[in-house]
Amino acid sequence: MLHHGFYRMVTTIVFIAAIYFAGAANAAPAATNEETPKTLGVVLYPGFEVLDVFGPVEMFMSLGTSKVRVVMIAEKAGEVPSGAGGDKAGAWSGPKVVAEYGFDNAPQIDLLMVPGGFGTMQQTQNAVCLNFLRERADKAQYVMSVCSGSAILAKAGLLDGKKATCNKQFYGLLTSNGPKVDWQPKARWVEDGKFITSSGVSAGTDMALAVIAKLYGEDTANGIAKGTEYVWNADPSNDPFAKDAK
Amino acid sequence: MLHHGFYRMVTTIVFIAAIYFAGAANAAPAATNEETPKTLGVVLYPGFEVLDVFGPVEMFMSLGTSKVRVVMIAEKAGEVPSGAGGDKAGAWSGPKVVAEYGFDNAPQIDLLMVPGGFGTMQQTQNAVCLNFLRERADKAQYVMSVCSGSAILAKAGLLDGKKATCNKQFYGLLTSNGPKVDWQPKARWVEDGKFITSSGVSAGTDMALAVIAKLYGEDTANGIAKGTEYVWNADPSNDPFAKDAK
Repeated sequence: MLHHGFYRMVTTIVFIAAIYFAGAANAAPAATNEETPKTLGVVLYPGFEVLDVFGPVEMFMSLGTSKVRVVMIAEKAGEVPSGAGGDKAGAWSGPKVVAEYGFDNAPQIDLLMVPGGFGTMQQTQNAVCLNFLRERADKAQYVMSVCSGSAILAKAGLLDGKKATCNKQFYGLLTSNGPKVDWQPKARWVEDGKFITSSGVSAGTDMALAVIAKLYGEDTANGIAKGTEYVWNADPSNDPFAKDAK
Repeated sequence: MLHHGFYRMVTTIVFIAAIYFAGAANAAPAATNEETPKTLGVVLYPGFEVLDVFGPVEMFMSLGTSKVRVVMIAEKAGEVPSGAGGDKAGAWSGPKVVAEYGFDNAPQIDLLMVPGGFGTMQQTQNAVCLNFLRERADKAQYVMSVCSGSAILAKAGLLDGKKATCNKQFYGLLTSNGPKVDWQPKARWVEDGKFITSSGVSAGTDMALAVIAKLYGEDTANGIAKGTEYVWNADPSNDPFAKDAK
């Protein structure tokens, strides 16, 4: 038992040391944006798609809170249910994620991110959400969307005259929300000024690493991909799903 | 304005029809396990890794609630904070996910899943968690883990004499939790009887699609990968991160 207890203690110390080392290793190469942590504000709504949110969030969280603080925001603070394609519209029975802030008390957002999901269409007709996005996009350093999230940005008028992309499965429907947007049918993600829009669901993770590379360098992005055992598609023009665009 | 309203209505109808169609398309090819929905029980704990959970959950949710119902479970029901490598140990400041059930009132679990994360080591020493896993693994059809989650299963003794894998970055530390486990240093995921353990973080998504293929057929798994624009690594022996195993 003594040996067992000692072993546990050593294991725990090694693990804590590993965490500190991982933090220090992360901190070292980033010379560009070290001053204060940036705030990544993720806008949740009923029927958001879980991987649209947590693919990118995983990558940003891996930077550590000294670089990026992740905050979940919704129209009203509280628990927000996710949804999926197999559900009937409006029956958002997926796992609930806590929005710590409502639109009324959200902090300054440096990196604004709008996920997609089957709840998207309700938000394209929600003036409160569109107004919040217009107001906060104006003050953000970068505005990202994943999947159908770009339809909400488009409906807010934020993508007018800009290049953007979205989910390829519902391409025609989604792009109809932005007749003045220069939609790209073949792109894993598209950058135009401060707006960076990704293709469907999984593409958001690739986009997030690209944004991390812009802010903190390629080495940091590659280190995070390796740490999360993620095969990063780092080429925005490599869109394996473009052929489905209608 | 009349035209605009009409356009909105048509758009909405098309979208709702698309959702129903997607649901129907999903339902069609699955002849194997149609009777009652299976329950995927995901065990959350403070400091769980978000993509470990939501990569697989995205894929299972894409089956629709007629096939799989996803439930979040924790030692006590309520909000559970996630964590990441950049955080100091114990300071789990990540997004919170709601556990609808506690260990005391969790429903029957058909597909049990244990994520990894920097909170793993605390759970390897949490007898309440280990007991719950032993009890529920016994009654489950499949028991999955992602990343360091297999260290918890190993500590519970569930992997003794079985082939398993885990995260490759902390391989030595994690495998020390199961001296009687036949650990595999090169595997995207490993299946041994009812236990299916994946490598780090992103590997869980590949494993989830493999389990979906086992339960509902390859076509269904490929359809979900396409719908979520995910490049599925469908070969468990293709482990791009195996070289880091220590």
